[in-house]
Amino acid sequence: MSDVLQQLAQVLEARKQADPDTSYVASLHAKGLNKILEKVGEECTETLLAAKDAEHSGDTSNVVYETADLWFHSLVMLSRLGLGPNEILDELARRFDLSGLEEKASRDQ
Amino acid sequence: MSDVLQQLAQVLEARKQADPDTSYVASLHAKGLNKILEKVGEECTETLLAAKDAEHSGDTSNVVYETADLWFHSLVMLSRLGLGPNEILDELARRFDLSGLEEKASRDQ
Amino acid sequence: MSDVLQQLAQVLEARKQADPDTSYVASLHAKGLNKILEKVGEECTETLLAAKDAEHSGDTSNVVYETADLWFHSLVMLSRLGLGPNEILDELARRFDLSGLEEKASRDQ
Amino acid sequence: MSDVLQQLAQVLEARKQADPDTSYVASLHAKGLNKILEKVGEECTETLLAAKDAEHSGDTSNVVYETADLWFHSLVMLSRLGLGPNEILDELARRFDLSGLEEKASRDQ
Repeated sequence: MSDVLQQLAQVLEARKQADPDTSYVASLHAKGLNKILEKVGEECTETLLAAKDAEHSGDTSNVVYETADLWFHSLVMLSRLGLGPNEILDELARRFDLSGLEEKASRDQ
Repeated sequence: MSDVLQQLAQVLEARKQADPDTSYVASLHAKGLNKILEKVGEECTETLLAAKDAEHSGDTSNVVYETADLWFHSLVMLSRLGLGPNEILDELARRFDLSGLEEKASRDQ
Repeated sequence: MSDVLQQLAQVLEARKQADPDTSYVASLHAKGLNKILEKVGEECTETLLAAKDAEHSGDTSNVVYETADLWFHSLVMLSRLGLGPNEILDELARRFDLSGLEEKASRDQ
Repeated sequence: MSDVLQQLAQVLEARKQADPDTSYVASLHAKGLNKILEKVGEECTETLLAAKDAEHSGDTSNVVYETADLWFHSLVMLSRLGLGPNEILDELARRFDLSGLEEKASRDQ
């Protein structure tokens, strides 16, 4: 599983140049940064609602689906801004002692 | 970089049992699902604002920081609901032909 | 201008019973609370993006349009839950000394 | 109730010049537009969570409280950008035939 984000980032990079009529990713880029950010916000809201529904139903399948949508659109946003998942993973690794000894995240995170 | 999410998930799992007075993650769990979801929403808003600022300034450092916060708190949410990053990466891999041949994401994603 | 919210609340109440094929409000109710809340979240994101664009362009027309969308959909949400604008205005009046003498909003508002 | 928004707008305008150490509104202005928008986003998330909880508990008191917070911070945002509630109410009145005969909101609202 470990290279999914890197492979997906490569796909997203290639899709930047694709035809907006046939590629969803290219259609987002054609509409611009605001459209991409609207999708990030929209998928965040849907993730929260799915989590609340899972709290009551015990069925977490929609949480998986909506969180995948949220991560996907945040990767499109990163790609738009010349960034990729490695910058985020580096930042997370930097914050946490991933040898497991100590939480390095600041309290106000 | 590839195992950062898995390692972080293990740290988050261990922190569930930690002392809320010394662990930020444990303090979120002690406050409950709503508090975790509030943080996901809050970090999403901060990510959008950082992306808009980067659009004008060209400085993307806050986008990296805020997206790391967003992913981090979405991992805490997943952990709260008995899920982890592998379910999300599996879902993303399932949607995309990661050999790069074809976008499988539905148009209304 | 002062009765716009009350008049709009009456319209929204009547539309609950309308045909979802011809009334947008009825179509939201037919789709359920989650759909209404998704729209509130979506319009909030669009309001934030419009405000950031206004910060740079000086053109606030989209802020007016998107904030109207946000208030509109929050009124639909209130209506869905058996509430109306008067409950919100009462709460705001309660918090503030509207004779202008003193801010009563708590610091952590 | 009808003049609460107008009175509140006057209070918010006066608070712009207040001491950030004693006025919450002044402290938001001192921190800048992003801080105000973060609060709008935060209160929107809390409104959605309160509505989901009300769906299950039947208790709508938190929905009233959080929606008041959302409207309050959107008024601070409007004030920051040189706008007020009248622009929003005018826009809502323009969209709707408030004599009650016909919904004028466009379908994609």
